[in-house]
Parts: sequence; structure tokens; C-alpha cells
Amino acid sequence: MVLWPRPRATHEEKAVSALTHDGAASAPRRPLPEAMSVALQALFGPRLSSAEAVRLQHGRDESPFPTTPPDAVVFCETTEEVAAVVRLAAEHRVPVIPYGAGSSLEGQLLAVQGGVSIDLSRMTRILRIAAEDLTATVQAGVTREQLNAELRSLGLFFPVDPGANASIGGMAATRASGTNAVRYGTMRENVLALTVVTGRGEVVRTGTRARKSAAGYDLTRLFVGSEGTLGVMTEITVRLYPLPEAVSAAVCHFADVASAVRATIQTIQLGVPIARCELLDVNAVRAVNRQSGLALREAPMLLMEFHGSPAGVKEQAEAVQAIAAELGGEDFEWASTPEERSRLWAARHRAYFAGLQQHPGTRSVTTDTCVPISHLAEIVEASVADAEASGLPYYIVGHVGDGNFHLAYLVKDGDAAERATAEAMSERMVRLAIALEGSCSGEHGIGLHKIGFLEEEAGPGGIALMRAIKQALDPLDILNPGKIFLR
Amino acid sequence: MVLWPRPRATHEEKAVSALTHDGAASAPRRPLPEAMSVALQALFGPRLSSAEAVRLQHGRDESPFPTTPPDAVVFCETTEEVAAVVRLAAEHRVPVIPYGAGSSLEGQLLAVQGGVSIDLSRMTRILRIAAEDLTATVQAGVTREQLNAELRSLGLFFPVDPGANASIGGMAATRASGTNAVRYGTMRENVLALTVVTGRGEVVRTGTRARKSAAGYDLTRLFVGSEGTLGVMTEITVRLYPLPEAVSAAVCHFADVASAVRATIQTIQLGVPIARCELLDVNAVRAVNRQSGLALREAPMLLMEFHGSPAGVKEQAEAVQAIAAELGGEDFEWASTPEERSRLWAARHRAYFAGLQQHPGTRSVTTDTCVPISHLAEIVEASVADAEASGLPYYIVGHVGDGNFHLAYLVKDGDAAERATAEAMSERMVRLAIALEGSCSGEHGIGLHKIGFLEEEAGPGGIALMRAIKQALDPLDILNPGKIFLR
Repeated sequence: MVLWPRPRATHEEKAVSALTHDGAASAPRRPLPEAMSVALQALFGPRLSSAEAVRLQHGRDESPFPTTPPDAVVFCETTEEVAAVVRLAAEHRVPVIPYGAGSSLEGQLLAVQGGVSIDLSRMTRILRIAAEDLTATVQAGVTREQLNAELRSLGLFFPVDPGANASIGGMAATRASGTNAVRYGTMRENVLALTVVTGRGEVVRTGTRARKSAAGYDLTRLFVGSEGTLGVMTEITVRLYPLPEAVSAAVCHFADVASAVRATIQTIQLGVPIARCELLDVNAVRAVNRQSGLALREAPMLLMEFHGSPAGVKEQAEAVQAIAAELGGEDFEWASTPEERSRLWAARHRAYFAGLQQHPGTRSVTTDTCVPISHLAEIVEASVADAEASGLPYYIVGHVGDGNFHLAYLVKDGDAAERATAEAMSERMVRLAIALEGSCSGEHGIGLHKIGFLEEEAGPGGIALMRAIKQALDPLDILNPGKIFLR
Repeated sequence: MVLWPRPRATHEEKAVSALTHDGAASAPRRPLPEAMSVALQALFGPRLSSAEAVRLQHGRDESPFPTTPPDAVVFCETTEEVAAVVRLAAEHRVPVIPYGAGSSLEGQLLAVQGGVSIDLSRMTRILRIAAEDLTATVQAGVTREQLNAELRSLGLFFPVDPGANASIGGMAATRASGTNAVRYGTMRENVLALTVVTGRGEVVRTGTRARKSAAGYDLTRLFVGSEGTLGVMTEITVRLYPLPEAVSAAVCHFADVASAVRATIQTIQLGVPIARCELLDVNAVRAVNRQSGLALREAPMLLMEFHGSPAGVKEQAEAVQAIAAELGGEDFEWASTPEERSRLWAARHRAYFAGLQQHPGTRSVTTDTCVPISHLAEIVEASVADAEASGLPYYIVGHVGDGNFHLAYLVKDGDAAERATAEAMSERMVRLAIALEGSCSGEHGIGLHKIGFLEEEAGPGGIALMRAIKQALDPLDILNPGKIFLR
């Protein structure tokens, strides 16, 4: 059992207030002037909507925050249309919030200062697949499943897989990663170039299709992960990979979560190029069994996947099997057909909803810490003990090969006390992650929910640099204001 | 033969003038005020030098520019000392130029506006090796050879290898890469966290030791490749890798450069995880033979290395051998002992000096373009034809697995006409690279030499964003001013 790095603190109240985002917006709603409505109407006709249902849909994401709708939604179809909206927004000092698939998790999409939601979900053109260069350029609304469907017949794939069928634009904006990141990297490593609409409504291309470059500031990676606060990405060029010659998936059960985590740590330390290494605790396995009609043994489990040549895959799997066996891993089972594999991964991807369905009427408060791999067992064990003691239902899934895991506390919708308990545990976990030289967010981003945590992680100096960059690129504070940090 | 994308142009004169950096500095030298000298003297005593020899040494790098010395050099030993120098520089509006091993190639170190060179070469402490997390934190002056010597007994290595025994700080500042990048990535992928002294002389830590993070703006990658213009890096946390179980190197000769390049293209497209894939043209092979006492066949050559398990390495090598054979590759020879391998790689790393020594009294004008892999044969062939037609001696080495190669034109020192010829060829090559959706710099950075090229590559919109960031983080323009772009 660890000592939590600081006493349970003042932050708790702040986190709860963030959940209702009192204060999180840092500024009041700004009205949408009539002149701008008229101008948008002229440009977009029926593709401008202020219908309540549409606004409500665009004022929420998968976070536990109350819906906070924008004043209007425009459905853009081209980069130039996006630029036109931003120019109007700049003229009228109105916030704009880029919207893709609506699957973000930390409140990124909420219109906390009002304004216009720029819906990019109709920008679904795959502009170019350069199979010979292993690159693809897509419009921001293309989803990862759409892209992969298109790539399959070419023997290629795009590996970044956050579970949800997110848009590539949204994934770039939140620096998403997911199950394949341990081998293929995150959006940070896999975005080569962008077309971005700046805060002045200008269209800028960052990066090139070359695999590497030392040419000036890395604007591409500055925009990746900026959550719509520095510009609106409209086209994204990503890296592709040849479909591996052989793929095999395996599950292995452990007596406890800590043993499963230790098996992961040793696998990474040994340098096994494992493609996916996912942890599900017993609660997650149980939920997945119910929801997906599987009959997985209800014990902590690693779900792994190996990519390579047939011989290479076999070699990797044997190495991991030996490690797992030493840590009491049992029932090392293979899913060798594509159908079995798909079934397992589909179940894994449904874990989030499966967990919620186990406890009707709840919403989840989900953590996203990421630590250096040697500290993973420590933080997982401490967090499990904390969750058990709280009496709240919870489950764990994790991209443990990266040191990243999600503990979802399920709290009754509208129950302020349960929420406060969950947020307090989340806060303790983040503090521990930071003390262990890790991050408050491995892949979900900051949004509204983790503003206080980012302050602690980056420190006043880091936040000051971020503010200076924001001020330089968005002096009017119209690009998704009130997110990531407070001005 | 390709059509060059634009007529030979006005840029030539600009490039030649940049070589003497008329205008490249964009501003006159700023005097070092007596008060600052006195303050530095008080802080650094004998570690402040304005001796001519010391200043001359710090006013040049491996670029063909005339030496442009700073007014003084301070040898810093701690982050706090660096911060103190920057605070004084801010107070007196004096430029500071971080200096590591002096091995940069594009004029990054020249004191074009005068000022103080901050020599970090005494900051050689390896602060921490976290073997279990595969990370190391080092002071900026630690060289890659020093780090790797320390790591060897732990069974680990740091893969980024630009050839020169550069400092890790300098490598981060120029976003260096080199021979291993095709498999392990560049400094962009391998720097996790930084300690940076900002333009205000504050010490900021960016990033964490976690392998991934979605927490706010990616400050780490903004500083990586910023060439000392946004801050002075004093500590760098990098990723490490387990030494591969098996390593084997091979050479293979081809009838012409294009066939060698085509073999590379197919290797990458097939997804073979080759660790190094280097091209040497016949001129480079000849130079290396003379200089290193080798007896390599004097023909275009690929020098490759495979990392993995013994079986995996064999599999990779067989795949590449089959590709090479189809393209007329001959004499596929193995270097299986570590000694043979070291000899080959040492020879490769000496190619730069070997090339110069073949033609005494010359300096090299070196290109650094990087293109999407499918265009590599086209640009190499066009550039070879251009070089042949010029009559200037030249040689080619290239990290061709990344689409990056260097053509070094050897020009007589002080011969303006030869220089102009070389710069004109370089310019045509860069224009072609940009037209082929590539970059003017794969790994050497912009410095003074490629300012005009970056303007073309990034466009006015991209440069405007870079300027805005520079203005935000270094409003006094004291951090290595006059580099990357003109204000």
C-alpha cells in the first residue's frame, strides 16, 4: 500500500465544481450577434441549425458533464467553409467549437461560453491514399473505421484505435491513442501533416508527407492534442502500415490485477514488440461477458495481440507466455481465427458501455493516468484499494503496455455525494501519477475535466508557456475557449 | 530525367548571399554592454572567456559559413547558471546562443547578431538511467557516445545516431536523426521530457517520463527542433531500447544508385523492420575505402542492419536479399562479428570527412532533402544528373529508408563561382523535394543556410505561425536570433 503523495485536498471541491463546470468556463457565455447569424444563414442555408435537438446533441460528449449547447451548429463541407465561419467568428468575437464524432471524454465539446459548433462530420472524403508511401490524407470527419475499411483491400491499415469510432480529426485534436499504441505509437507519432484553419480564419498547411523533417518549428505536433484551442484541423495526413503477415491474439488470466500488470511490465522491459496489451479487471470481464455473450473466465485478464511474420508472432507469444506463467498466468488461450479475434476486440471496445449497463442509472467518472511502466503496479494496486474501500462500483481497463489505464467509477446520475467520492479518488490517483513522474492524461485529453490536474502536472511555468502560445495564435480567444487551461 | 519544378531562380543569389550571411542576420550585431560583462565575470570568473581563440571556436560549426564569433563564451555547469545568463541577456537585450559539441551543419551556432555563447559541454552528467522504464535523463552536454557507453552494461541503448558524436542537447535542438531513424524514429519520437530555460530566464520542465500523454500542448516537441530560438534545453529525458538479441549488418552493391534506391523503397513498402538502410554512391565508397583502409567494391552500395531475435534477423535479411537480387544487387555480404560491423559503421560515419579529404582545399555544400519514399529514386536520379553535368566533385550518402539523403558538393574554399553553382543545384533539389511533397531538411535543421528554403516549404502562413510563437516565447529576440526564419 502506498502513501498518497499529499493529503486529500482542496482540489476535490474544485473537481466537483468542474463537473458542473461552475467556474470552469472562466468567462460568461458570449452572445451570438444577429449579424453573424444572418451571415451564416446566407452562407450555409439549411446547413445552419439552431434547432434545440441539434444544439443539445452538439453540447455534450461522453463526459459526465451536463449538456451545454452551442447557440448554433454549422455543418461544414469544405476547408474554405470552415475558414469562412472562423473569419465571421473572429469578426464578432464568437467562440467556435470543432465537432467530429462526439466521442470525446473530458468535456471538450461543451459550449461553455456559447458560440457556434463547427460540425465536420460531413467532411468524410478520403482525399488520397498513397499506398507506396504508406500515407493517407483525409478530411477531418473521416472515421478510423471508414479509413480502415478503405485500406483493407490494399493490404494496409491505420493503427491508432481508441475504441470508439472517432473521427480522425477528433483523434488528432485530442492526441488519441488506444490499444495499438504500444507498438505503433499515438496520434503524436502518426500524424505527418495537417491543414488547419487558424484563429484568423487563414488556411495553413503544416508538415509534409516526408517521414521526418527538421524544418522549423513542429507546428503539426503543436496542433495535435490542442483540442481545437489553437486552430480547426480540416485535413489530416497520417502514416499507414502494411497489414501484418500474421496476427494472433491471446488471453491470459491472473490471480490478481497486480500479477497481470507485472507480466506486462516484464514484457515491455524485455523489448517484446507486442502490438496490443490490454488489462481488464474482474469487473470489466464480468460486464463484457454479459454484454457480449462471451464466457471469459471471470478473473483479471490480459488481452494481447502479436503482429509479425508467422515465426515472429510465435516467438513473441512464447516469450510472453513464459513471463505470464512465472507470474501465475493461467489459461493462455489463443484466438487464431480473424472471427475469434474480432469478437474479443469488439468486446473489449464495448467495455465502456458494458460497464455502464451493469449499473443502470449511473454515469462514469473515468481516470486516464499514464505512468512510467515500473510504477504501474503500484498505482493500480493503490487505486484498486481506494475504489474497493469506497463501495462505489468500478471497473478497470487499461492500455497497460504504455503504462496507461482507466479506472471508471460508476456514480448514480445526479448523486452529488457519490460524484464527490469518485472525484476525490480520481484526484488522489492523479496526484500519485504525477508524483510517480507520470501524466494525468494518457489519451483522453484535458477538456474541462482535467484543467486543475494539468495545472499541477505542467506547473505554473508550463501553463504560462501554453497561455503565451494560445494568446499568440488565438488572441481573440474564439477557438474552443475555456478548455485545457483557464486564461 | 525530371523537369525541375520551376525555372532556376532568384533564390540562387540569396543562397550565395546567405553563405556569406549578408542579410541573413536580419539585424546588426548588438553590443555586449560592459555592465553585463561585469555581471557575468562576477558569476563565472574564469568560466567566462572573451579570448579570441575561444570566441572563434564558438563562432563556427560544420557549415561552410565564415566564422562569426560571439562576444563572449560562458561555460555553464548547471541549469541555474544557464538561467542566470539568460536573465542577464534579457535585461541587456543581448543574444545568447546555446553551444553543445559544435557539430551542427547549417550555421546554427554562428553569432550573427553577436552576443554570448552558452557552452553546455561541461554539463555532462547522466542524471538518471531508469532501466526498468527504458528512459534516461541527461544534462544537455552529454554526448550520444557517452550515454551509450554507460548503457551498454545494462543491455540498453539510445538509438538516435547522426554520425557525429553530437551532444544530446544539440541533437534535440536540431531534431537530429541519422542511421537508426528508419526503425527507432528521430529525436521527435525519442525525447520524452525537457528542462528548458525560457526567454525570461525561468526554468520549466516539459513532459513527463510517461511514454505517452494527452495533457495539454506538446511543449516538448515544440522545443525539439527549435534550434535554441525558443529556449535553452539543459536536461533531456530520452527513450531507451533493449539491445537487440541479434544484430547483423550486410552490404550489397548495385549497378547504379537508382537500383539501390529502388531496393530500399520496396523494403520499406513491404514493412520489413530494417534498423538501418544507408546508401553510399560510388564516390562515397571510394572515399571511405581510402580513408578507412577498406576494400569495398567501388559501386553504389546499401549498408544495412537488422535487429531482432536470431530468427527474426535472418527472416528480415532474407526478405531484403530477395528484393535486392531482383534489382541486380550483388555481393550481398555479411558482417556478422561486432568488430566487422563497427568497422563498417565507423567508415560510414567518416564518409563526411573522407569525402572532403579526397579533395583537399574544398568545403562541402550539403543537401538534406527528405521526400515520400516513392519519390526517392526520382529526386536522387535528377540530382545526380545535375551534379554530373556541373563538373563539381560530389558524393552521396543517405538514410534512404526514411527518404532522406545528402548530396555533398565539394567547392574550392573561397571560389564564389563554384559555390554559386553548388547552391544553385541545392536550390533546384530543394524545389523538387518540395514539389514532391517533401522537406528541405530531413535532419540538419534550418540554421542560416535554409532560411529561404523553409519560407518556400512552410509558406507565408506557416512562417507567420512560427513568428507568432517566437514572438510569444522570446519577445526580446535574444534566443539565437536570426536563425530558422527572419523576423
